[in-house]
Amino acid sequence: MKFTKMHGAGNDFVLLNGIVEKIDDYSKLALKVCNRHFSVGGDGMMVVENSDIADVKMIYYNSDGSEGEMCGNGIRCFSKFVYDNDIVDKEVFTVETLAGIQTIWLEVENKEVKFVKVKMNKPIFDPKAIPVLCEGKNVIEKSIEIDRKEFVFSTILLGVPHTVIFIYDIKDIDINELGHKIEKHSIFPKRTNVNFVEVKDKNNINVYTWERGAGRTLACGTGCCSSVVIGNVLNKLSNKVMVKAEGGLIEVEIKESFEIFMKGKATTICVGEFIDI
Amino acid sequence: MKFTKMHGAGNDFVLLNGIVEKIDDYSKLALKVCNRHFSVGGDGMMVVENSDIADVKMIYYNSDGSEGEMCGNGIRCFSKFVYDNDIVDKEVFTVETLAGIQTIWLEVENKEVKFVKVKMNKPIFDPKAIPVLCEGKNVIEKSIEIDRKEFVFSTILLGVPHTVIFIYDIKDIDINELGHKIEKHSIFPKRTNVNFVEVKDKNNINVYTWERGAGRTLACGTGCCSSVVIGNVLNKLSNKVMVKAEGGLIEVEIKESFEIFMKGKATTICVGEFIDI
Repeated sequence: MKFTKMHGAGNDFVLLNGIVEKIDDYSKLALKVCNRHFSVGGDGMMVVENSDIADVKMIYYNSDGSEGEMCGNGIRCFSKFVYDNDIVDKEVFTVETLAGIQTIWLEVENKEVKFVKVKMNKPIFDPKAIPVLCEGKNVIEKSIEIDRKEFVFSTILLGVPHTVIFIYDIKDIDINELGHKIEKHSIFPKRTNVNFVEVKDKNNINVYTWERGAGRTLACGTGCCSSVVIGNVLNKLSNKVMVKAEGGLIEVEIKESFEIFMKGKATTICVGEFIDI
Repeated sequence: MKFTKMHGAGNDFVLLNGIVEKIDDYSKLALKVCNRHFSVGGDGMMVVENSDIADVKMIYYNSDGSEGEMCGNGIRCFSKFVYDNDIVDKEVFTVETLAGIQTIWLEVENKEVKFVKVKMNKPIFDPKAIPVLCEGKNVIEKSIEIDRKEFVFSTILLGVPHTVIFIYDIKDIDINELGHKIEKHSIFPKRTNVNFVEVKDKNNINVYTWERGAGRTLACGTGCCSSVVIGNVLNKLSNKVMVKAEGGLIEVEIKESFEIFMKGKATTICVGEFIDI
């Protein structure tokens, strides 16, 4: 079975062409190929299939064998993959995912995909929907106490609950300890991702990511978008921001009524063929 | 650049043919290709080169870019790789390594390598050489106190210091906590690997590995050998033992004057070509 390994901002994926090679058990295969010691390894596995309602269909599985709805960094890789492999021959196209049909814009130079832009889902501010156990119509600039210290936070739902905390300098923060404690704080019944944000200026931020269930990661696409949404609401940031995550750069643009566009690179690491599968 | 990814008992490696494709900076390349998020990922990188003093030469680099002397699980993969790629056309051959010339025996059926046997270095028992801060000619069945609990341990030097602790049931042990505390105990000036060993019978053991600097790993070839050496000295084990590590099975045989032979499988995960290198 042929495969391609790619990454988007350090989120890495094993990609398979399910149109050419049929796959029986996605979950079992994802568990196998995402294992970093016994296989190629990745945060997730993506399979290309034909779609009846979009230009192409993306099947996404997490490394634990569970099916995922969407993945911001993943769909950039997927989009470059289907273009590079002539599965889709357009620079603007649609991808069927479990989270709905996504629109993709490729920036191509001499047949080489330079950037991939994705329209994200809209953020949800209602505390009941996120969910966060607090009063009011949104969760903007609330405060919680962790180890007898007050932290100002804001939380939205963008795929998963995203809590954003603006900090002065990441060196002052123990991300592992604080991320862990905030994720599991009783105010978040379904736990939360935590994004620690340093604002450099209105158009540039650094984001350090703690993911619900996964802990420290190099980048989280929806986390970068959530950080810009909240910075924008609080007037700390403009509506077009370059986000430097630990795994790479992502550009986030917020348009009218919170339409979010995320743009970034997708890198092909290698192409190969499984021997032991 | 072409590559092969392989594993031996869950220790995984990126293998390159340096005879065909010349490599300038091994250290930089190892750092790059062993990265699990931005490349193929592995515990180490091995490069095949021509040797003036053996049938073939193995260059071994750890994932942190440092050069390694030898790696028991690694050399099994290396040996299958040079045979499968027709670099060596014998079933018994020699490999030049930084730790000296190693002899390899392949068990081949229909041109397929079933098992690889390697002669290991001899164990060193002298506490000054290991080093362990204790009296006597060896470090067999000494005791240390960890969190007010006594543990009986034995330590030898086999490449690195290896401490072996026989346990009744791994469920009674917190490997992470105990491994960490023993590794850094003041009695071991250069720290130590820790091997927790369940004896099933004289010919079968389970080994759970804590590696100096690396923490919990799925298997450690020299750790499996050390466990059998000490079990043999203490008359708990015979001279030919099947070791079940978490990453796979390894057979260890002790011959006269502590000649150690390790036999196990080597698995080719995939072959491929780097795009982003």
